[in-house]
Amino acid sequence: MSKSIKKIGVMTSGGDSPGMNAAIRSVVRTCAYHNVECVGIYRGYEGMMEGDFKPMDARSVKDIINKGGTVLKSARSKEFRTPEGRKIAHQKLMDVNIEALVVIGGDGTFNGGLVFNKEFDFPIIGIPGTIDNDIFGTTHTLGFDTALNTVVECIDKIRDTASSHNRLFFVEVMGRDVGHIALNAGVGAGAEEILIPEENLGLERLLESLQRSKRSGKSSSIVVVAEGDKIGKNVFELKDYVETNLDEYDVRVSVLGHMQRGGPPSCFDRVLASRMGVKAVESLLEGKSNYMVGLINNKMTLTPLEQAVKGKTQIDRELLRVSEIMST
Amino acid sequence: MSKSIKKIGVMTSGGDSPGMNAAIRSVVRTCAYHNVECVGIYRGYEGMMEGDFKPMDARSVKDIINKGGTVLKSARSKEFRTPEGRKIAHQKLMDVNIEALVVIGGDGTFNGGLVFNKEFDFPIIGIPGTIDNDIFGTTHTLGFDTALNTVVECIDKIRDTASSHNRLFFVEVMGRDVGHIALNAGVGAGAEEILIPEENLGLERLLESLQRSKRSGKSSSIVVVAEGDKIGKNVFELKDYVETNLDEYDVRVSVLGHMQRGGPPSCFDRVLASRMGVKAVESLLEGKSNYMVGLINNKMTLTPLEQAVKGKTQIDRELLRVSEIMST
Amino acid sequence: MSKSIKKIGVMTSGGDSPGMNAAIRSVVRTCAYHNVECVGIYRGYEGMMEGDFKPMDARSVKDIINKGGTVLKSARSKEFRTPEGRKIAHQKLMDVNIEALVVIGGDGTFNGGLVFNKEFDFPIIGIPGTIDNDIFGTTHTLGFDTALNTVVECIDKIRDTASSHNRLFFVEVMGRDVGHIALNAGVGAGAEEILIPEENLGLERLLESLQRSKRSGKSSSIVVVAEGDKIGKNVFELKDYVETNLDEYDVRVSVLGHMQRGGPPSCFDRVLASRMGVKAVESLLEGKSNYMVGLINNKMTLTPLEQAVKGKTQIDRELLRVSEIMST
Amino acid sequence: MSKSIKKIGVMTSGGDSPGMNAAIRSVVRTCAYHNVECVGIYRGYEGMMEGDFKPMDARSVKDIINKGGTVLKSARSKEFRTPEGRKIAHQKLMDVNIEALVVIGGDGTFNGGLVFNKEFDFPIIGIPGTIDNDIFGTTHTLGFDTALNTVVECIDKIRDTASSHNRLFFVEVMGRDVGHIALNAGVGAGAEEILIPEENLGLERLLESLQRSKRSGKSSSIVVVAEGDKIGKNVFELKDYVETNLDEYDVRVSVLGHMQRGGPPSCFDRVLASRMGVKAVESLLEGKSNYMVGLINNKMTLTPLEQAVKGKTQIDRELLRVSEIMST
Repeated sequence: MSKSIKKIGVMTSGGDSPGMNAAIRSVVRTCAYHNVECVGIYRGYEGMMEGDFKPMDARSVKDIINKGGTVLKSARSKEFRTPEGRKIAHQKLMDVNIEALVVIGGDGTFNGGLVFNKEFDFPIIGIPGTIDNDIFGTTHTLGFDTALNTVVECIDKIRDTASSHNRLFFVEVMGRDVGHIALNAGVGAGAEEILIPEENLGLERLLESLQRSKRSGKSSSIVVVAEGDKIGKNVFELKDYVETNLDEYDVRVSVLGHMQRGGPPSCFDRVLASRMGVKAVESLLEGKSNYMVGLINNKMTLTPLEQAVKGKTQIDRELLRVSEIMST
Repeated sequence: MSKSIKKIGVMTSGGDSPGMNAAIRSVVRTCAYHNVECVGIYRGYEGMMEGDFKPMDARSVKDIINKGGTVLKSARSKEFRTPEGRKIAHQKLMDVNIEALVVIGGDGTFNGGLVFNKEFDFPIIGIPGTIDNDIFGTTHTLGFDTALNTVVECIDKIRDTASSHNRLFFVEVMGRDVGHIALNAGVGAGAEEILIPEENLGLERLLESLQRSKRSGKSSSIVVVAEGDKIGKNVFELKDYVETNLDEYDVRVSVLGHMQRGGPPSCFDRVLASRMGVKAVESLLEGKSNYMVGLINNKMTLTPLEQAVKGKTQIDRELLRVSEIMST
Repeated sequence: MSKSIKKIGVMTSGGDSPGMNAAIRSVVRTCAYHNVECVGIYRGYEGMMEGDFKPMDARSVKDIINKGGTVLKSARSKEFRTPEGRKIAHQKLMDVNIEALVVIGGDGTFNGGLVFNKEFDFPIIGIPGTIDNDIFGTTHTLGFDTALNTVVECIDKIRDTASSHNRLFFVEVMGRDVGHIALNAGVGAGAEEILIPEENLGLERLLESLQRSKRSGKSSSIVVVAEGDKIGKNVFELKDYVETNLDEYDVRVSVLGHMQRGGPPSCFDRVLASRMGVKAVESLLEGKSNYMVGLINNKMTLTPLEQAVKGKTQIDRELLRVSEIMST
Repeated sequence: MSKSIKKIGVMTSGGDSPGMNAAIRSVVRTCAYHNVECVGIYRGYEGMMEGDFKPMDARSVKDIINKGGTVLKSARSKEFRTPEGRKIAHQKLMDVNIEALVVIGGDGTFNGGLVFNKEFDFPIIGIPGTIDNDIFGTTHTLGFDTALNTVVECIDKIRDTASSHNRLFFVEVMGRDVGHIALNAGVGAGAEEILIPEENLGLERLLESLQRSKRSGKSSSIVVVAEGDKIGKNVFELKDYVETNLDEYDVRVSVLGHMQRGGPPSCFDRVLASRMGVKAVESLLEGKSNYMVGLINNKMTLTPLEQAVKGKTQIDRELLRVSEIMST
C-alpha cells in the first residue's frame, strides 16, 4: 500500500439510510489502522463548502454501529452544483490538507463527486448508501436490507388487522423509480399482489387478481405498491377504484413513509458497511480513485463511478415469477 | 362460585387490538379450569346472528397469546342494531345452549351488549379491547400499551432521519376523540409538541413553540398529532401552514396508520388480558352481569357497563405538564 | 416553589436499567425549566468522591430517551461506605456548590443516600431504577416493564424451537430475591409453570405438573425459573432431575442473562422516567428530602427513603392464581 | 416441465431454523401452482416411518411465512438409520403415492436422503435449513440471516450494560464446528475480539488484545465466542482466566442459547425460502434428483447432495481481517 495519502475526509450526502454510521465508523477505524488521519465532513457538500470539519479518531465512532441516520448529518446543496461552490469546497479541503474523500450516498452524491474529481483531480471513492437499492455495481446498497425488514415487520402488523376484519390493504412503500423494496418486501410479507414501476400490471388485471384471490378462499389481502408504480393511480385512488369496481371489499390504505429510512441497521447492513469502509479507504491508499465500492457475488468490488451513476439496476425477473407463484 | 352456568360464549367485536387473542385464551382456559364449556363466536354480533360458532377447549388456544389481531375475527353488524337481528342472534345462542357472554371490544360492542341484555336478560361481561384507551372504568384498555410501544419505535426511526437532515416531522397517530396515544407516545418519543383533541394549542402558539425550539438549539423536531386534534388543520395542511409561515423549515409528514393496531402484544397487555379473562368468566359464574372488567390501581375491578359506555376518560393533566417541561 | 436550591446533582448507581437515561434527561430538563443548574455525577458514589462532574443543560440530554444503560455510568463504591469516603464526597459536592441530589438506583443506592443525608443533612430524592421491581413504594420500578418485554420476546423465540421439537425448556430469568419478573413474564409468555423465590412448589409437584401438562395434550412446555427460586436446585440440576425422573422428556436450559438489563426502554418506562424526574426535582425545590418518588395508582407519590429501603414488595397472589388457571 | 410427478412430500428435519415455514409454504404453493398434490410429512423421517402425513393445499399454509420454527415439526430418528426403518418409510410413501420429496434441514437430513435415494431410487431435492450456515453449495442457509439479527440485537442490549459498568463480556453464540455466526454477528455487534473454531487466537494473544483495547481508551469490551472455539477453555473458564491474569477487569458471561434458533424470519430469509421452495419443486418436476438448492451469486443453483454433504464451508478470511481492523 502506497499510503502517500496522509488525510482522508468522509461525508454522507443525500437521503440517510441505516448503515451509514457503520460505514463512517469503518472508514474512521480503517484510517486509524493505517495511521492515516480522518476528518468528518458535516452535512455533505454543504458542510464541505463551509469547512464544517471535525477530526475523528478510532474512539470517536464508538457506539454508532447500531444507530440509524448519520452522525455526520446530510444535506442538499445547490451551491455545490456551481463551479464557484465547488471551488470554495476545494479550497476548504486544501486548507486542512484533506487529500482524498470517501463519499457515502446515492446517485446525486456520486454525480457531485465525479464533477469535483474532474475539476480538481481529487481522489474520490464512493460507498452506495440508500435504501432503494437502485445503484448499479452492487447487489445491495447500504440500508436496503434493513428497510426490507422494517417494511415486512410493518406489514406483519397490518396483516393482523387485515385478517381480523377480512380486509384488503394497499400498502405503499418507498421506491419512486425502482421496485426493489416493493418486490422483495412484498414477497417477504406474503403480499397477494405487488405493483412496481418496472411493470404495469394494469388496472383490469389487478381487479381480476383480487377476485381470483377471493375465490381461492383468501379472506384478506395485502397489495404492496411502490411509490412510483405505473398503474396510473396513486394508492388512495386505487382504493376508490377497487371499492367502485368490486363488491363487498373493505379497502384500507397505509403509507409507510419515512420510518423506512431509519432504525438500527440489520446485521447484514452492519457487516456490509464495515467491509465497504475498509475497501474504500484501502482503495484510496492504493492510489485508486473514481470508483464505487460494491458487493457482487459476496465479494467487495470496484465499479467506475461513472458506470455506477449511469447504469440501471434491473428488477429480478425470477423473483417476480416467485411472487406470482406464491400468491397462488 | 355458583357455576350454574354450563356454557359461555366469547367474541371480539369492533376494531381489533393486540391482546384480544390473549383475552380469548384466558376466557377459554378459565372456562376449562371451572369445567364450563366455552364456545367461540366468530365475527362478533354478525357471526352470532349466523350461528358461526366453534367449541373451544384449553388446547385450541395454544400459541395465540403472542399474536396480534383476533382469531375469532371481528366485524360490524348493521342488522344486530335492529330488534329482529338481535332476536335471531338470541335464538342462535339458545340453539346451542350458550347461557352467558364475554364480549371483547369497545364502546360500540358494549352498547350492543347492553341492549341485548335488556331485551333478553342475557348475562354479559365486557372486556375493554381497544388501543385508544378511551373506555371509562379502567386505566388501561387491552392493546393500549402495545400501541404505545409501536408508535415510539416508529418515531425513534423517524427521528433518525429527522436528526440527520435537521427536519421537522408531523407524525399522525390514532385517536379520533381522545389523545391518550398521542400524549403518552409523544412523551415517550421525546416529541417537541403534542396536539390532542382535548386541547387546542392554537396555530400561533404552535409556531411560537417551534421557533422557541429552534432558538434553543434543537436542530430537528417531532410534533405528534392525534387524528382528532382540534387545531383546525389536518396534518398535511399543518405542514403547508408551517412552511408558509416559518422560514427555513424542511417539514415532512408521516401518518402511522393501521400498523398501530397490530403486532405481538406487550407483556403488559398479555398479563392484563390474562387477568381480565379470569375475572370476566368468574364474574359470570358468580352470577354477575352487565359489568365491564377493568384495571384500577393495579387491581381487577368491575364497572357497570352503562357507566363504562357513558363515562368519559380524562386526559392526564399532570402528563401534559410533564410533556411541556420535557420540551424545554 | 421555593427554588432556594440553585444547583442539583444527578447520578445513577447500582445495576443499570432501561429508563435511567430517560430519567436523567427528565431531571436535567426539569432543572432547566426551573432555571436551576444541573450537574451530572459520573459512576455513582465513586465518581462523586472523585469529583467526576459535568454540567448538563437541556440540549446535553437529547437523543438519550430511547437508549438503554446510563450515560452517567454506574459503579459500586467500597470507599463510600466509610465515613472518610463520604466526607470526601461531601467536600467535592461543596466545591462546586451542588446543594441537592437526585439518586437513581436501587436499595444499595438509597442506603448510601440515607447515610449521606444523615451525616451532612444533604437533601436527597431517590428514583427507583432497577429491573427487579423489588422496591417498596412504587408499583413499577424503572426498567421493569422493558425487562418483561425483553423476556417474553426471548421466550417467544424459544417456544418456536420448543414447539418444533416437542421439548421442555427451563428458562432462567433475573430475580435473586423476588419473583416479579418470573411471574409476570411467565404469565406473559404462557409458561406452563413458574418457579419463584416467594413460593416453593416442591420438586414432586413440579413433576406432577409436567406430567399433567403432557397428559392434557401439550407437546412442549416452558418453565420460567427466577434465579433465586427456592426449589433447591439450580436450573441445570432441574434439567437433570426431570430427565432422570420423567421418561421421554427432551429437556433444554436457557439462561437469559444480562441482556435483560439493556435495550431501548418501553414507552411505559420512558413516560414513567419522565414523570419521576419532574417529581424528584420539584420535590427538592419544594424543600423536601429523604423521599423516593414512586408510582402508586397511576399517580406520582413520595415514600420516605427509609421505608422504601426497609419495606418488602409482595408477590401478586392474584396473578399467581391467574398463572395456575392459564396453565390448564 | 415434464410434470410426470403427481404428488410431492415435504418435511423438515434436524434443528429448526427461521424460514423453514416460509419454505414449506413455498413448496406447497409451487405444487398448487403446477397442479401437483403436496403432502406434509410430520416430524421428519420419524413421522415418515409412521405415515404421519397431511395433504396440504395453498390455503393451508397461510399466515406461516412470518413464523419461526416449523409447523411440520422436526425430530431425530434412530430407526431411519437402519435399512428396516427406511423400508418401512418407503412403504408408507408408496401407500399414499408420494413420488418425490423435498427435505428441509442440514447435513444429517441430507445424508438420510442420500441413502434413501440410493436404496429406492426415490427423487429427492434438499433445501438447506440451519442457522449455522455450514452447508456447502450456498452462501446462505435458511435462518442464518435471522439468527445474525437476533444475536446482534442481544449484544446491543448487553453492550448497554457493559458500557454503563465498564465491563468485559464474553458472549457465547451458536456454532460447534463453524464460526460463521460468531464472525458475522461479532463484526455486526462491534465486538472487540471474536473466537471461532477455525482460528485459535491463543490465550496470550487474547490477553494482549484486551490490554491493548483498554490502553486505546475502550472502557468496555465484548468478546464473541463460538461454542466450538478452539482456545481450549469454555466461556466460563475464559472469564476466570482473564480475571486471574488481568487486573481490574470486571468480567461477565452470557450464553445466548436457543433463542438464536427462533423468532420471525428476516425478510432475507423469507425471500430466500420462497425462492428455494420454487426451485426445489420445479427441479423435481424437471426430473432432477439428489440436488440441494442453493444461493450463489444471488441466483438459485443446484449442487449435488453428495457434494453439499461432504464439502466444507470456509470462513471468510476477508471478513476476519475486517474484524481485526474494526477493533482498532
